[in-house]
Amino acid sequence: MNVFYLPDAQIGTISFPEEESKHIVKVLRMKEGDGFCVTDGNGSLYDAELIDAHPKRAMANLSNQRAGYDIRDFKVSIAIAPTKLNERTEWFLEKATEIGIDEVKLFSSYHSERRVANVERFKKIVVSAMKQSVKSKMPLVEEMVSFDKLVKQNYDGQKFIAWIDDDVKDQLCDLYKKGENALVLIGPEGDFSKEEVALAKENGFVPVSLGEARLRTETAAVVACHTIQLINQMK
Amino acid sequence: MNVFYLPDAQIGTISFPEEESKHIVKVLRMKEGDGFCVTDGNGSLYDAELIDAHPKRAMANLSNQRAGYDIRDFKVSIAIAPTKLNERTEWFLEKATEIGIDEVKLFSSYHSERRVANVERFKKIVVSAMKQSVKSKMPLVEEMVSFDKLVKQNYDGQKFIAWIDDDVKDQLCDLYKKGENALVLIGPEGDFSKEEVALAKENGFVPVSLGEARLRTETAAVVACHTIQLINQMK
Repeated sequence: MNVFYLPDAQIGTISFPEEESKHIVKVLRMKEGDGFCVTDGNGSLYDAELIDAHPKRAMANLSNQRAGYDIRDFKVSIAIAPTKLNERTEWFLEKATEIGIDEVKLFSSYHSERRVANVERFKKIVVSAMKQSVKSKMPLVEEMVSFDKLVKQNYDGQKFIAWIDDDVKDQLCDLYKKGENALVLIGPEGDFSKEEVALAKENGFVPVSLGEARLRTETAAVVACHTIQLINQMK
Repeated sequence: MNVFYLPDAQIGTISFPEEESKHIVKVLRMKEGDGFCVTDGNGSLYDAELIDAHPKRAMANLSNQRAGYDIRDFKVSIAIAPTKLNERTEWFLEKATEIGIDEVKLFSSYHSERRVANVERFKKIVVSAMKQSVKSKMPLVEEMVSFDKLVKQNYDGQKFIAWIDDDVKDQLCDLYKKGENALVLIGPEGDFSKEEVALAKENGFVPVSLGEARLRTETAAVVACHTIQLINQMK
């Protein structure tokens, strides 16, 4: 099933921007009358029928607006320091979008390997993963902020900080309460500094372990995301 | 902490093959007296001290043999059809090794996108992930077999087949029994054929869902692996 993203999707006749039109008509070679699916990235999926196979402003008729199956009553937020290799952060974005994530918060910290992030490129990765996994809600990718600023932001839900330390005995999977919003801070490749951990604690973040395995930053972020999802999924 | 893999590691003086020696002496520029860690890939970690920084047959003194923290009383086995893009299968191998997996079974099936697998390359990925995540046990990557042959193999544990079907109501996370060995078959990009699902059922595989999210093959494989690990991890 081909899914296209149109933020201003609505029941009735709509036209696609040039890039999407080109993809529909030139790449996928769709003809008038062909059917596909459209997501507005804001919780709705639509059935679409191509009514004008124009290569620059293709038009379609949208019907059957419905909420996607990815609408949840809890929110999953992961904060991560972009990795040295961009492809690792991008891989996390793709996988977390497939598994289900609501917010990605990017931060730079004392041991960060990367001080600038190409958020526009990150958003493109998220959009394509959303389309590929037939999601109706687009995860929010926020601009990078400093760790200090991040931990002082308000968050309506449980707040955790995950890093490698033998003193951290509690596990995310044991402390997270099913049905609640959760924000998990994932340590950068150089891990958090003692001062950062202390600052996070002062601001209400609970130290947790993701288990005994030594995980790369992007793996830890996906594991944290899946942990929250799985606990909500379990009967 | 640098970790090296030496299948025949043992207490006392050992020498490294040319490639590892080059890495230790030329790449990492280690000097005599420098310390690192060695895994035999079979459950043991050792402390090592370089005693001869020879670029082609470096020698070290091994001491303090100990079991790795990745020794489990249950076995995680995932069977997957190699993806069209090798990098996606390789990504699964890296992540599953970090998270914890014992066996990777490769199969070709009716809708497989790839009929041949470079198992030697896959093993290299697993070795490097094992070293990077300080594991003591190397996951076994088996040669590719046909789906029919795979489902008829004996397996001492719970057997599941995961694929996308609205009729599959049970979830892996609800049916898997903590502490038991588990083998999960993951559908190829083209998914399983009806005949393959039937054959798997005949051979004792229980149909399960991994949740509502539409996951790519390699994501489903990592999610299945993490699901087994997490259920065993939870208090």
